[in-house]
Amino acid sequence: MSAKLTAEARDAALAQLSGWTLRDDGTAIGRRFVFTDFSEAFAFMTRAALAAERIGHHPDWSNSYRTVEVSLTTHDAGGLSELDFELAAAMDRIAAR
Amino acid sequence: MSAKLTAEARDAALAQLSGWTLRDDGTAIGRRFVFTDFSEAFAFMTRAALAAERIGHHPDWSNSYRTVEVSLTTHDAGGLSELDFELAAAMDRIAAR
Repeated sequence: MSAKLTAEARDAALAQLSGWTLRDDGTAIGRRFVFTDFSEAFAFMTRAALAAERIGHHPDWSNSYRTVEVSLTTHDAGGLSELDFELAAAMDRIAAR
Repeated sequence: MSAKLTAEARDAALAQLSGWTLRDDGTAIGRRFVFTDFSEAFAFMTRAALAAERIGHHPDWSNSYRTVEVSLTTHDAGGLSELDFELAAAMDRIAAR
């Protein structure tokens, strides 16, 4: 489940997301989420944190007022795994609500 | 309340904190908090977010698993104000629990 994806599998998974870009030589994906204010941004982070705990996979992320910058990678795999795309999709669903 | 502090007032306020360092040419203070795991780190962030909303002053911060890196500045003032030290002290109290 957390094995490093091949470049082909990675690109196929990325193609199913919108707003995420490859970073760090293909070992991470990132997206910036912008909300209306800090409260909305932190509400997103709270729900995303619960999703991360459920999946057992956690983001590297930063927050400045209404902006949340997310970077996902699977350190143990040395690159991107299915877990990263699962968490990315969960974050997209949360942000879309 | 959110006026930029003089260097003297800033240094006096900083001297009352522990673990915080001046950054960015004296326009920000920062501290790294390390917890036992993601759950503890995010519990800290949640309480700190509530404190930030109460004060009406918000951190720039990042989280990677059990580490939370905080940077505080008062953008409107172009430097550090009393609000930064108020939020820093609140974060210290939360982390110490």
